[in-house]
Amino acid sequence: MRDIAGAADLSAANLYHYFDGKHDLLFYCQDRALDRMLAAVTEARRAASSAPERLRFVFTAHMRTLLDDIEGATAHLQIESLPPALRSAIVKKRDRYEQGLRRLIADGVRAGELVDMNPAIVARAMLGAMNWTVTWFRPDGADTAAAVGEVISRFLVRGVAMRSPAAARKLAVVGRTS
Amino acid sequence: MRDIAGAADLSAANLYHYFDGKHDLLFYCQDRALDRMLAAVTEARRAASSAPERLRFVFTAHMRTLLDDIEGATAHLQIESLPPALRSAIVKKRDRYEQGLRRLIADGVRAGELVDMNPAIVARAMLGAMNWTVTWFRPDGADTAAAVGEVISRFLVRGVAMRSPAAARKLAVVGRTS
Repeated sequence: MRDIAGAADLSAANLYHYFDGKHDLLFYCQDRALDRMLAAVTEARRAASSAPERLRFVFTAHMRTLLDDIEGATAHLQIESLPPALRSAIVKKRDRYEQGLRRLIADGVRAGELVDMNPAIVARAMLGAMNWTVTWFRPDGADTAAAVGEVISRFLVRGVAMRSPAAARKLAVVGRTS
Repeated sequence: MRDIAGAADLSAANLYHYFDGKHDLLFYCQDRALDRMLAAVTEARRAASSAPERLRFVFTAHMRTLLDDIEGATAHLQIESLPPALRSAIVKKRDRYEQGLRRLIADGVRAGELVDMNPAIVARAMLGAMNWTVTWFRPDGADTAAAVGEVISRFLVRGVAMRSPAAARKLAVVGRTS
């Protein structure tokens, strides 16, 4: 609580003025972080023209939420500390986000833009790579949050993206003429 | 403790007969898991002929240690519960393993077999994707430990591996003749 107040440049007393207590604040932070991640999935579907681009958009938003914002950092504290009713609301929203990511992957596989790998397992591997950053990222460390987000997004997209269509076309031509 | 005893088909009393207490057992499990992961890095350097193959070897061993074995599962419990001296020994060994993985990546980048991305960030993204499985993997779930390990290993290798040398050579030929 003191950490959050410090980061938000408020006294803990101030924070308690706005929230009923630790649980309400923690719930609010987690809930807002998930809202931003869900909005990124919707926006990626609207604005990006291919599955790799859509994934990159979502990863960038996810990493920004995790590493840049107070809400993000607290959103991945143990949700076990929430009372059952609040926890269950967060778990439901988290599941919706994971389902959204799985669908982006499954649609990309169907469109021939992503490699055919189990979308449920791949989605969780992606979430793991991103969420694990809260265990090691330090704002005063060697790399900025933006740099970490950029490397991890690129790495995760490469993991599922088909070789570029241009490269595949050239290879097909080579195959025909050799 | 009861969970471990159950999985090992021993009574908790039996386990306490062999170990001085919870801490000793937890330390032993974590230490053994890390020994196996470190041995995999050494073995990968000896036996595999390219960086992508070496990484795949290490990931497969890591996932097997995490998901198949009792030691693995307990190895990633919160090490915060260990007394300082034991915890510090584990943290040192964990750092050695992470350094080993980073070197495999950095060497692969230098050899032109892996894409040039920050090895420290990529290594941690890989560790996150793998270690996160302990939060969601269920032995009675839809996928076996072997299947999960196989998908995640393939996904993580793809994330850094250069396009296949054969494909790159063909593309170079196309570039020259077009």
